[in-house]
Amino acid sequence: MRSVGIVGLGLMGGSLARDLHSAGWRVLAAERDPDTLAAARAAGVVAGPLHEEAAHGLDLIVLALPVRAATEWVRSLAGVADAGSSLVITDVGSTKRSILAATDAAGLGPKFVGSHPMAGSHESGWAAARADLFRGHRVWICPTAASRPAAVAAVEQLWRDVGAEPQRTDPLAHDRLMALASHLPQLTATALAGLLSRHDVSPADLGPGGRDATRLAGSDPDMWTDILLDNSDQIAPALDALARELAQLAGDIRTGHPGPVRRRMEKGRVWTGEPRSGGER
Amino acid sequence: MRSVGIVGLGLMGGSLARDLHSAGWRVLAAERDPDTLAAARAAGVVAGPLHEEAAHGLDLIVLALPVRAATEWVRSLAGVADAGSSLVITDVGSTKRSILAATDAAGLGPKFVGSHPMAGSHESGWAAARADLFRGHRVWICPTAASRPAAVAAVEQLWRDVGAEPQRTDPLAHDRLMALASHLPQLTATALAGLLSRHDVSPADLGPGGRDATRLAGSDPDMWTDILLDNSDQIAPALDALARELAQLAGDIRTGHPGPVRRRMEKGRVWTGEPRSGGER
Repeated sequence: MRSVGIVGLGLMGGSLARDLHSAGWRVLAAERDPDTLAAARAAGVVAGPLHEEAAHGLDLIVLALPVRAATEWVRSLAGVADAGSSLVITDVGSTKRSILAATDAAGLGPKFVGSHPMAGSHESGWAAARADLFRGHRVWICPTAASRPAAVAAVEQLWRDVGAEPQRTDPLAHDRLMALASHLPQLTATALAGLLSRHDVSPADLGPGGRDATRLAGSDPDMWTDILLDNSDQIAPALDALARELAQLAGDIRTGHPGPVRRRMEKGRVWTGEPRSGGER
Repeated sequence: MRSVGIVGLGLMGGSLARDLHSAGWRVLAAERDPDTLAAARAAGVVAGPLHEEAAHGLDLIVLALPVRAATEWVRSLAGVADAGSSLVITDVGSTKRSILAATDAAGLGPKFVGSHPMAGSHESGWAAARADLFRGHRVWICPTAASRPAAVAAVEQLWRDVGAEPQRTDPLAHDRLMALASHLPQLTATALAGLLSRHDVSPADLGPGGRDATRLAGSDPDMWTDILLDNSDQIAPALDALARELAQLAGDIRTGHPGPVRRRMEKGRVWTGEPRSGGER
């Protein structure tokens, strides 16, 4: 029976605990909210608390914490994961460069392999955790030159056990891609919600499409503030580029000529994979 | 048996035809694509083509066309809707000032009451039309001082017959609100898709939240180009304001201080109606 210690029973850690328990793993957990830990034990998902002594016999530890808290936890793991143990450590954070710098600094380089599942929700906390959250979703795996091959394989197998699809990348490529593919959509929803709020336009005033476009604005502010500051060098230029794109759209619309506006709409549609419109309306 | 003529069997007109047929209305339709008209007749939804002679005996005509095409159709209705007839005309367009100016100019003021259902999808065409598209959704109704009270009541009843919730407003207030609540979310998705496309980030690289945020980019370019140019005086300033909001976010993130970034995230979350976060993570 494989065993895992999960640090943090929020949406990600809680969902992972549920799935690994279902897949036959023994799950221990560290969670600062005693009610959440009690609920996870009462649900039969978590077998017991993750103490330093308990950690020694585990196959894997997953840091399912916000980016900054995960980086802080790394230091406390240096004692647990001594050179001789086969313990492997991973995380679920949206950025990868800073946690890898921290694990290297803590001497955990060979044992730590960063993960980032492209699954989740604007919801958060144990109450939002659910089975099959990761099924069918890509999980970025960030091995480094220091990573033990066995550690990489163990982390990939963990994700396959919950139905996810591990895919390898490197930390900088990951953080650069996430600035565009994840952090920018989040901030766009946040900015849109902020503007609508200032104009007293409520979610009830939006149609189904507008509600989709703003759903991410409901994401957890603390978790996201960590991510945004941690990846600021990639995110800020992406935000500036989007601001320019919107200003150009405004300029095109002001001219009153359909051509440039239609070309921008068509470019967006082609990107989504919808069939190219042939002016059928 | 009440009777309706629907001009255009796309997503909106096709869905309305389905629902009104189910509700016991006799439905005639004008549709420039003969295959679509044949499909709607074969489905038993449409009883026959909407010719000028047929139009004289109808209770209602619905212009379910893109904004500019609807405005052009208004002129051809001036002959059908003579002063003595009780025919009522409405539309489904995302803007209301221009169609009302056109109906006034055509002498149709007393008979025309503009509608705008806040339902739909990024999909388009008869193939996307479905039952219950409007159920539970708000429909803006724009009477003017010239509107006959009986015409307003008839249009409101039409929407109630398909489960929608009519709500009155005036054309300028409508167009101003839509610039923020509908047109801005559409353009945000389009701009985001354009930027991701330029950076070779594909929809498959996005998580569930990012896909929600960009779904509207798949909307019909022709229909939207009409809307955007028609409501440009309201939309362009809204786009500029969103561009400023994004640039300010970039500035806040560059400072590295969590306070201002967290406040913007929290403001967005409060707007969505999610519970205020208490720093529980």
